[in-house]
Amino acid sequence: MTTDTVVVLGPRSDEQRARIESAAGRYPVRFATSLEPADPGLADVVAVGGSVRGDVLAAAPRLRWVHSWAAGPDADLSPEMRAAGHVVLTSSAGNGAIPLAEQAMLLMMMLDRDVPRWMRAQADHRWDRFTHGELAGATLGIVGVGNAGTDLARKARAFHMRVLGCRRNPGRPVDGVERMYGLAQLHEFLGECDVVVVTAPATPETRGVFDEEAFRAMRPTATWICISRGGIADDDALLRALREGWIAGAGIDAHGVEPLPAGSPFWTAPNTVVTPHNGATTAGTARRGLEIFLDNLTRFAAGDELVNVVDKAAGY
Amino acid sequence: MTTDTVVVLGPRSDEQRARIESAAGRYPVRFATSLEPADPGLADVVAVGGSVRGDVLAAAPRLRWVHSWAAGPDADLSPEMRAAGHVVLTSSAGNGAIPLAEQAMLLMMMLDRDVPRWMRAQADHRWDRFTHGELAGATLGIVGVGNAGTDLARKARAFHMRVLGCRRNPGRPVDGVERMYGLAQLHEFLGECDVVVVTAPATPETRGVFDEEAFRAMRPTATWICISRGGIADDDALLRALREGWIAGAGIDAHGVEPLPAGSPFWTAPNTVVTPHNGATTAGTARRGLEIFLDNLTRFAAGDELVNVVDKAAGY
Repeated sequence: MTTDTVVVLGPRSDEQRARIESAAGRYPVRFATSLEPADPGLADVVAVGGSVRGDVLAAAPRLRWVHSWAAGPDADLSPEMRAAGHVVLTSSAGNGAIPLAEQAMLLMMMLDRDVPRWMRAQADHRWDRFTHGELAGATLGIVGVGNAGTDLARKARAFHMRVLGCRRNPGRPVDGVERMYGLAQLHEFLGECDVVVVTAPATPETRGVFDEEAFRAMRPTATWICISRGGIADDDALLRALREGWIAGAGIDAHGVEPLPAGSPFWTAPNTVVTPHNGATTAGTARRGLEIFLDNLTRFAAGDELVNVVDKAAGY
Repeated sequence: MTTDTVVVLGPRSDEQRARIESAAGRYPVRFATSLEPADPGLADVVAVGGSVRGDVLAAAPRLRWVHSWAAGPDADLSPEMRAAGHVVLTSSAGNGAIPLAEQAMLLMMMLDRDVPRWMRAQADHRWDRFTHGELAGATLGIVGVGNAGTDLARKARAFHMRVLGCRRNPGRPVDGVERMYGLAQLHEFLGECDVVVVTAPATPETRGVFDEEAFRAMRPTATWICISRGGIADDDALLRALREGWIAGAGIDAHGVEPLPAGSPFWTAPNTVVTPHNGATTAGTARRGLEIFLDNLTRFAAGDELVNVVDKAAGY
């Protein structure tokens, strides 16, 4: 006899465990730190909150649902997961949208006002007053207008910016976005922007989209910011764009290689602010992520349709 | 015979001169870098765009209007100007409201996300990922809800913050401000706030309002930001508040003494970001300031009522 079981990975407080168990209804919940293919209990597992490696997936024949703690589930999309038609993958998309949009606004202003110059002056006890930019009146281009991009558009409008968008499906309008371009129109779109913010997921379609041609299509006075995933830019092209002045600067939270090695040239690239994929690392993100899982777990227990279902072919 | 003359101080491009002359209508315009009391032409001067010292004012008997290039005209309010009932003083209020509100948002995020820590890590080529705050859900208190404060309220609402205000005249509501307190309720107001932003003018009423009691009325987790004028805080009290942990940090653009001397303790105060009264130093501020003057000059030439008239008793 088997008992359908839900496994939840990662540390949880007593209060969180109680809420998870309540949402799971008739399903017993097992809390664990990781899952291994040799685990004899795997045969009973029907749902997992957390990452499930390809080899574990193969050893869990009755698994029907995996919920990723990541907003962008690219790391959970193993070949086995893509092939497992019987396993629904859901993501935590939306958990970090608000703090990511905050990070984008912060990086935009840090570049526009040359915050590193102020910080150097403060370190030297030097009064260094200079003329800088303002975001008002500038054109922001958002690449990938999902949860974070939609929130960012609202913030940018309150900053009196013009907002353009570029994404896979340009048909659906978004509040505050004056014009939406398709990915095929990327270069035309880039030529219109004073600031470009990448909030797109890492997918086969977005990988390397910022190549030499894309950076050359940007204005030499424009800045480039990435808050979602590395790999959307070709790192060599980005570095040349910065060093050779094809663009005016960059704010990089999501990097091609993470953690960024000490020897990476990006730490010292011209007019570049580097943050350690840290935009959404807040208590609020963890709290919202748990709520998304609890909502889905309640739905799973009731046999209802899940939310945040990942399109495995599209990759997000 | 005398010729009523308008004097405009400060460097101007040919295009700006042409626009000023056109706005002045029948009045000849003299462009100059400064005005001295011995200037024999002073007898003809009826209006000045720029600062007029007390001794110059006494030597210009027919002067009727002075337009200050500053948004906060405290430096132009000499005893002679206060006493000169026949001279209307107008300000450039509103010229820098938008970039000042940008600076306030920037300083709020720099403190909330510990940007100095990221900058140190970047300088050391170190990947230092940590949990930080988000502005969403926090309560912002704006002290002095004028042009900059009103724009800041709009921005903060787009950041999903709760916004409270505190000012001399609490009766007039402002979009996005949930509750407006009077200056007499300052301490009650401060106890509600996670971030306090001072956008108030320097007036006899605001001078030293942030004393030891006020800083002690703030939450120990709250940050204090000043983007308008020094002197609204008692510097000794502010320094103790930072050093003794009555508050969590400060972002100071406007200082009690400017330029801040190299020996000032604020450069190294705990959790403090110092910028050199630089929030509104943008091309946009200069452009908007000129438009305000041109509007008033057109009104002056037509004998119409001026805008941005300073209440000399209130001080702004």
